[in-house]
Amino acid sequence: MKIRRRTGNRRESARDRIIATAAELFHNNGYNATGIDQILKAAGATKGSFHHHFGSKKEIALAVIKEIVAPKFNRRMVEPVADAPKPLDAIRQVIRNLRTQGSTDDLLTGCPINNLSSELALQDRQIQSSLSALLDRWQNEWAKALRSQSDLEMQTGFKSARQLALYVVAAMEGAQAMAKAQQSREPLDAVCKHLETTLKRSHD
Amino acid sequence: MKIRRRTGNRRESARDRIIATAAELFHNNGYNATGIDQILKAAGATKGSFHHHFGSKKEIALAVIKEIVAPKFNRRMVEPVADAPKPLDAIRQVIRNLRTQGSTDDLLTGCPINNLSSELALQDRQIQSSLSALLDRWQNEWAKALRSQSDLEMQTGFKSARQLALYVVAAMEGAQAMAKAQQSREPLDAVCKHLETTLKRSHD
Repeated sequence: MKIRRRTGNRRESARDRIIATAAELFHNNGYNATGIDQILKAAGATKGSFHHHFGSKKEIALAVIKEIVAPKFNRRMVEPVADAPKPLDAIRQVIRNLRTQGSTDDLLTGCPINNLSSELALQDRQIQSSLSALLDRWQNEWAKALRSQSDLEMQTGFKSARQLALYVVAAMEGAQAMAKAQQSREPLDAVCKHLETTLKRSHD
Repeated sequence: MKIRRRTGNRRESARDRIIATAAELFHNNGYNATGIDQILKAAGATKGSFHHHFGSKKEIALAVIKEIVAPKFNRRMVEPVADAPKPLDAIRQVIRNLRTQGSTDDLLTGCPINNLSSELALQDRQIQSSLSALLDRWQNEWAKALRSQSDLEMQTGFKSARQLALYVVAAMEGAQAMAKAQQSREPLDAVCKHLETTLKRSHD
């Protein structure tokens, strides 16, 4: 993610600017590597507005997850599938979008949920559980969608739609982690294309 | 990983104690959350020995990768496959070991390569490339092993053994990341069992 110059947008509140800036800095540099002063400077916000809106960096992180990461994640991964007349087609399209939308730069920065979770899951139970809830929802909604495809489990060798959903989600997360680790699109392309083919084949 | 009391082992050099302790602290708490003083205290080492052996925390991290992460990784993931008379059986066994060996606690702390990479891949090119080299080797050795199984690509729907290897590695990394994020073995079990079944079915 690129850090946009947010100070120019006067209609955005200081609180919004702090959260949006923190989301980008946490994603690009990590939570522990990002200081509060750095967030405030990049957001064009004062120490006073930080203390007015937040009690700690952790509170900023919880707001980032709730107000930036979760809505974007739901919009991209969950809602297109939950509301789809053909849920399996929708899943394939979401996987395809992950691979084809966004710049290569974006594809090499990792998944925002996994970036935060990898650093903080063992450190902070509250952050861990708010991130875990997003993954739960992803797995549950996709399991529901896959369940609607009655012959899918058997064709793909899974015992249940839930097992298949866990698997697809893990593969997508792993693909993004590998792409970041290796600074290469190749693992992401390989995984997504295979998932698209597998789910298509079962579908036909 | 649990931090063992290392100060009691007098035969270990201060340098070894620093690296072993740092490996555990980086894995459990993260690189940026771990301070040099904290490493030295837990290792029972002095500031003098740190300055004697290392110039910076980054140099400790590079030593951790080279002397702790890489040998353990090669021993678990690469050597059993590279040296195996039946490489595909060996891959299945490695995947099975990931799922069945080690305590549940260990399974929920994530992959040491991915933990470091997720936090540092975008921050430090040298650390990124030393971690990426491990993943390259994993993918390459497994691709070679899978290539020895001539009908495997077709049966699993992959165009090449390399694509299949990228996929299997990504799924395993994603499974460990999900297990850590959700503090649950379920995704790890689902992914590993499916990979074992897929590779067995193709093999028979």
